[in-house]
Amino acid sequence: MTTQGSASTVNDAELHSEDLEEKGLDAEKARWYTDTVINAELADYAPVKGCMVIRPYGYALWENIRNALDEMIKETGHQNAYFPLLIPESFLKKEAQHVEGFAPELAVVTHGGNKKLDEPLIVRPTSETIINHMFAKWVQSWRDLPLLINQWANVVRWEMRTRLFLRTTEFLWQEGHTAHATEVEAEEEAKKMLECYRKLAEDWMALPVLTGEKTERERFAGAVRTYCIEAMMRDGKALQAGTSHFLGQNFARAFDIKFQSQAGELEYAWQTSWGVSTRLVGAVVLGHGDEKGLVLPPRIAPIQVVIVPIYKTDEEKALVVARCEEIKALLAAEKIRVEFDNRDNYTPGYKFNHWELRGVPLRLNIGPRDVANNVVEIARRDTMEKIRGVAQGGLVNEISGLLVAIQKNIFDKALAFRQTNTVKVSTYDEFKKVLEKGNVFIETHWDGSSDDEGKVKEETKATIRAVPFNFEPVEGKCMLTGRPTTRRVIFARSY
Amino acid sequence: MTTQGSASTVNDAELHSEDLEEKGLDAEKARWYTDTVINAELADYAPVKGCMVIRPYGYALWENIRNALDEMIKETGHQNAYFPLLIPESFLKKEAQHVEGFAPELAVVTHGGNKKLDEPLIVRPTSETIINHMFAKWVQSWRDLPLLINQWANVVRWEMRTRLFLRTTEFLWQEGHTAHATEVEAEEEAKKMLECYRKLAEDWMALPVLTGEKTERERFAGAVRTYCIEAMMRDGKALQAGTSHFLGQNFARAFDIKFQSQAGELEYAWQTSWGVSTRLVGAVVLGHGDEKGLVLPPRIAPIQVVIVPIYKTDEEKALVVARCEEIKALLAAEKIRVEFDNRDNYTPGYKFNHWELRGVPLRLNIGPRDVANNVVEIARRDTMEKIRGVAQGGLVNEISGLLVAIQKNIFDKALAFRQTNTVKVSTYDEFKKVLEKGNVFIETHWDGSSDDEGKVKEETKATIRAVPFNFEPVEGKCMLTGRPTTRRVIFARSY
Repeated sequence: MTTQGSASTVNDAELHSEDLEEKGLDAEKARWYTDTVINAELADYAPVKGCMVIRPYGYALWENIRNALDEMIKETGHQNAYFPLLIPESFLKKEAQHVEGFAPELAVVTHGGNKKLDEPLIVRPTSETIINHMFAKWVQSWRDLPLLINQWANVVRWEMRTRLFLRTTEFLWQEGHTAHATEVEAEEEAKKMLECYRKLAEDWMALPVLTGEKTERERFAGAVRTYCIEAMMRDGKALQAGTSHFLGQNFARAFDIKFQSQAGELEYAWQTSWGVSTRLVGAVVLGHGDEKGLVLPPRIAPIQVVIVPIYKTDEEKALVVARCEEIKALLAAEKIRVEFDNRDNYTPGYKFNHWELRGVPLRLNIGPRDVANNVVEIARRDTMEKIRGVAQGGLVNEISGLLVAIQKNIFDKALAFRQTNTVKVSTYDEFKKVLEKGNVFIETHWDGSSDDEGKVKEETKATIRAVPFNFEPVEGKCMLTGRPTTRRVIFARSY
Repeated sequence: MTTQGSASTVNDAELHSEDLEEKGLDAEKARWYTDTVINAELADYAPVKGCMVIRPYGYALWENIRNALDEMIKETGHQNAYFPLLIPESFLKKEAQHVEGFAPELAVVTHGGNKKLDEPLIVRPTSETIINHMFAKWVQSWRDLPLLINQWANVVRWEMRTRLFLRTTEFLWQEGHTAHATEVEAEEEAKKMLECYRKLAEDWMALPVLTGEKTERERFAGAVRTYCIEAMMRDGKALQAGTSHFLGQNFARAFDIKFQSQAGELEYAWQTSWGVSTRLVGAVVLGHGDEKGLVLPPRIAPIQVVIVPIYKTDEEKALVVARCEEIKALLAAEKIRVEFDNRDNYTPGYKFNHWELRGVPLRLNIGPRDVANNVVEIARRDTMEKIRGVAQGGLVNEISGLLVAIQKNIFDKALAFRQTNTVKVSTYDEFKKVLEKGNVFIETHWDGSSDDEGKVKEETKATIRAVPFNFEPVEGKCMLTGRPTTRRVIFARSY
């Protein structure tokens, strides 16, 4: 319509070389994902390579996820703080593995205030280096520990292939950074925060997750151990939804974070870092969505109940609208997030599609006969069932109960889907055959090297998602090398 | 202590050429400010030019301010969203006044992913350009209006002279951006949001503010009119605490934001933008602080009540600590933000100073005799008064009442201070004499040009802070030109 508009349309294709190269079913699913995110107005392409605009509906979803996690972070004794966006280039180089991991992805500020800078500044890809520089200033004695800090911030990683929410050049996240007096304490912290992430995914986002450890190949650059939560999406692929790292003393040595112990010795601190990002919004879309669009878990849904009025005559309209307003006020008073779709230029059918696409858990349809009978019709988004003739008197109880039931049903459905789509294999031949048929989680014995993992990835696109915590040691043989091992892992193709 | 530590100490002086060049009293106040911010652990210097680290206590203060405003922004119908940090250089150039205003302050990303970029990207100094680019995509019809968007974000402006919170290279803020079908509506919006800022300042931060319009000289780059809230600090200087801009159709024309009106015409949208930043934390410090440190308004204080135990023997300690824990639980259950300072390596006297420096509104001192008599001693930070023998039974009521009284007292004190330090003058001679004696707000008739304002600034360092809304037209003569005018303004030296 406008010059601006068409310019940006041309740019969208160029700027967003999204990862759409899969074939067949995968490509279809990728298109479904992008269409759903755009059409449900969760996000839009930005006129900057690999960047997105998070629109109000997507941001409200992110706010609900963020607020739930922020409360857990505070309850576990952490404090929010804020560190600079721009990091001196020299800082990045202090931890060898860290710089190796991030060097290819950096955005660099070379000019400020119309002058070339003496030292380039990096737009943070993560804040370990600058935060640990400050920790070295703040930590002197064992009394200063543990230092339990969290930051909500934007970070930039120059990604080659991007996808809305799942992998964007800039994203929003929280990054926790902690320092402890002992190894045991730091290890406990890393696991405690992973448990917060599990709760966030399962209890709030209704996404069942595997918890476990990453192999060396998939480890965070600079970590000793990386723990993760991994979720299965509706296409059978895995999505890494959060990671928590035990950093040992790597960054403490690089940044000289020393403290006087109770025994009077000068010691390096033990550390962790952990983060989740706006990727979680993508996880909700891909983890629960169906052909009609989003299916949102009630606990994080920006709108839990939408009211759609149905009428023909002006007389009917007056009656129905008054009743809708009344019910809206009733639900809002009970802290139910309710919206009344009173637009007069759309049909009820259009509105049904509109809100189904947006995944609103419950829709109330109210027509003249409902008004006369003091009832409403309730439509569930998760099952698409309709419950007719719900008496107005019991409406708040009915809706509160349904919201709980939907939250549980969405979780159960995702869990059953994962269980159905998890396969055990003993040999690499079996492994390849299973993956030829489609995306699943594969449980298998593994004793291969990082190079072996690389080979499997190259040949099948599958990687080790986790060595799950709940896998007890069982005698067996590595599917690739045939060597005896008790370690079992989960392989999958992933986002 | 560490190499890192000393390196950063050397850097602090170089990197933070803070605006400390004033002489005499002003320099003393500037030192007091910086010392208070650092010692109360609100913020620390970062190892990046002009940047700061917001420490947990400062960030908690910001979170309380932010949450209060966020609620008002949502109640007035706005939605949060998020737009990219990095803006194509060409976007900045689309609005002529805008680029002129911001060009000297830009940080520029020239490299990404180890490659030189085709077009440099600007780290956003404000988001008008990128947000309006998106608005052009989203706005087609009058039904899409008003579009009421807010963003919480970080921005970067390459400032020559910086001061913690008050003026930093990077800062946190919210920026509202709206588009409307009519001029009247946009004008109303700009004033409505200024009113939210007034409420935030007066009702939450206990800072009385003047509301009014800026002169052309002080207007936002690209705005038709800039409205502001201006507060007086304890040194008699003014601090611009928030601005709201009526943008007319300037950005709509630059970014081609057109809509089909109800009458079927294609029209440019009318717009506003408005923002407040982490500068507000500095306003609280400078607006209420005294020689002992911060004085925080209870409604935004991260800690409203601190409990300090007083004991000598182990037996006393057991009794007192148990009682302190009990009272802490009692207050926490009433949603009072309470902290129990149970550190055993500091004396009560040390703790008193510690919490007075941090401006905690109320301190409870509890010793063995208080335990025996079921009473506590309450110390007020604002008046430094002690209330002895407060019965435990009525403690919650007493404290709730005191928190309200302190909030009011802090506001009243600031208002009385501003009234005492506001002077009316009729001539430029008087004006200069008044300012020689110290910093005050000066009310005077004004009909000068922008150049005249520049001349006054050069000679006296004072600028027009606002043409206050509540100044009715009164016949008089411009203090500088002698021309008859009904317009009165407020001049002051400012941060």
